[in-house]
Amino acid sequence: MNGGDGASSYARNSSYQRGAIEAAEALLRKGINRRLDITDHSYSYFTIADFGCSSGPNTILAVDIIIQALDDKFSSSLPNNTTPQFQVYFNDVSHTDFNALFALLPPQGPYFAAGVPGSFYGNLFPKAHLNLAYSSCALCWLSDLPPELTDTSSPAYNRGKIHYTGASAEVARAYSCQYRKDINLFLHARSQELAENGLMALIVPGVPDGFLDCQEASTGSEFDLLGSCLMDMAREGRIKEEEVDSFNLPIYYSTPKELEDIIKSNGELKIDKIETLGSIGAQGTMPDLESRVLYLRAVLEGLVRTHFGHQILDDLFDRYALKLAHSSFILQPQTHRSIMIFALLSRCYDI
Amino acid sequence: MNGGDGASSYARNSSYQRGAIEAAEALLRKGINRRLDITDHSYSYFTIADFGCSSGPNTILAVDIIIQALDDKFSSSLPNNTTPQFQVYFNDVSHTDFNALFALLPPQGPYFAAGVPGSFYGNLFPKAHLNLAYSSCALCWLSDLPPELTDTSSPAYNRGKIHYTGASAEVARAYSCQYRKDINLFLHARSQELAENGLMALIVPGVPDGFLDCQEASTGSEFDLLGSCLMDMAREGRIKEEEVDSFNLPIYYSTPKELEDIIKSNGELKIDKIETLGSIGAQGTMPDLESRVLYLRAVLEGLVRTHFGHQILDDLFDRYALKLAHSSFILQPQTHRSIMIFALLSRCYDI
Repeated sequence: MNGGDGASSYARNSSYQRGAIEAAEALLRKGINRRLDITDHSYSYFTIADFGCSSGPNTILAVDIIIQALDDKFSSSLPNNTTPQFQVYFNDVSHTDFNALFALLPPQGPYFAAGVPGSFYGNLFPKAHLNLAYSSCALCWLSDLPPELTDTSSPAYNRGKIHYTGASAEVARAYSCQYRKDINLFLHARSQELAENGLMALIVPGVPDGFLDCQEASTGSEFDLLGSCLMDMAREGRIKEEEVDSFNLPIYYSTPKELEDIIKSNGELKIDKIETLGSIGAQGTMPDLESRVLYLRAVLEGLVRTHFGHQILDDLFDRYALKLAHSSFILQPQTHRSIMIFALLSRCYDI
Repeated sequence: MNGGDGASSYARNSSYQRGAIEAAEALLRKGINRRLDITDHSYSYFTIADFGCSSGPNTILAVDIIIQALDDKFSSSLPNNTTPQFQVYFNDVSHTDFNALFALLPPQGPYFAAGVPGSFYGNLFPKAHLNLAYSSCALCWLSDLPPELTDTSSPAYNRGKIHYTGASAEVARAYSCQYRKDINLFLHARSQELAENGLMALIVPGVPDGFLDCQEASTGSEFDLLGSCLMDMAREGRIKEEEVDSFNLPIYYSTPKELEDIIKSNGELKIDKIETLGSIGAQGTMPDLESRVLYLRAVLEGLVRTHFGHQILDDLFDRYALKLAHSSFILQPQTHRSIMIFALLSRCYDI
């Protein structure tokens, strides 16, 4: 994600993710109210972690919603104003712009804040330290790319593409296997870190059930469009074709069924609720072409820069804007198929 | 402090502070071994906070020493390898370069790490959350400047000076009052945050007892030298004299007696030990002129830039290097009077 708060920063181009949080707000509040069991538990303090928080205002918004819901829960459930103090951990990979995030924190906020650098696919906290875990729009990021994507001898070699959308079934399978591995790592780490009676709320970017099999629809992906711009540049000799072949986006969109299946097979956390969020389509949160280009650039610019160098950035995203203007995303927004999956999980008591 | 790891960064010019940590190592180990009471306490995890950690390798070094001492303590005191997991909090003001600090963390270290932005003169953690608090070379930084320093009608108006060294007794008194207020705030916040049986180790930059009364010696201060360079520049019209008058360094060096008196009057924490560290003179850790200039620049450049602008920086520190070359610091290093005060404190059990 682009740091800072400049024109192409993630902080200023993450309205889509904000839409997801707002759409999940009611479920989050209800989940905390109904599923968080605080009656038998005396908290000296209550710990909350946001996994993959990024460095924009969305993470503050999400935490505000959670704190409000917890305040309501404690004040209605416990007598004599025994609401505990809150300690909030903001986690993301270590190159996240933590200083930009810290600058957004309210100076005398209703919680104590800390930044936790590191991959959420590993342990980040001591055992049983967390009372509430949360993650929004982050679990689509793979820990790594499947190696077969760049292995020329593999049927999953992803020539001329930068993602599994529009690519072969083998490529999609390689991504899907990596996703399953990663989600298992995530669930394992969190199940160790969650305290007794701990709860975890996830908002996971995904696609509707059956979508992966629908090649016609999936070829419409914005990533596919970006990949075709890179291939155009390769054909014009601006970059090498092999550079495109070796570039793949570490992003995967699960279906609700697939995610539910992974969580159930894993078995370390119990599903209290899983459902698809209502309409939070990009057409609502990013109505115009420019905001959609800026959004994709804020999310992907870092990856593109690392692989191809900064020289191609403007040209690439200009080309992308032109293609997007003639794409189904803009011309037929109703075909846009991305969704958010809301899941509420808790520790299995017999573990 | 200068962030990053460039030539004038704090990270590369903090050998003096490293000397202090190394000099305190034995006391720190002994303090943890003898004073930390773990026998009646079962830790699900053990929390450590470094207050005013800055963003250089020193903070990692200090934490490594502490973790090693804790490991020794737990493995020798508790049967069956019941050493708890460690959660380490790195605290400093929010504009500290936390990303530079996080980049220094070992990827699979023996502790979980978090950054905590904010002033340590206020509460930064929930009540009773910390098992071990630590602060090194940070408690000389005042939370703010006494307002009378820039009040032309006050006897403590600090005309033509940037510090209390070499200034009037009223100026020194204003600094000393501010220091007392600040240390009281620090002790109050920590006494709330320390858990039962919690321990706090402080390494506080200071001057020997009786030093404040000795005007002849105190006029030798390096800050005084820097102030005289600024006044030279004002006389040459490069900056305005009023700009120098309104610039004061928020730094205070206590005597051991003064610090002990403040802690005892405050009464919220009990002194287990207080002593002056052995020789860690600047002449040992910064043997040459250049390293001393770079050290002062790394520490003060940010303050100077904010007040005077970046244009004067090179000129100012060049002038400073010339004056320093002819000063008693270089010509008679044995007159250097700064010390470090080591204090080990614990929660009073009757609070």
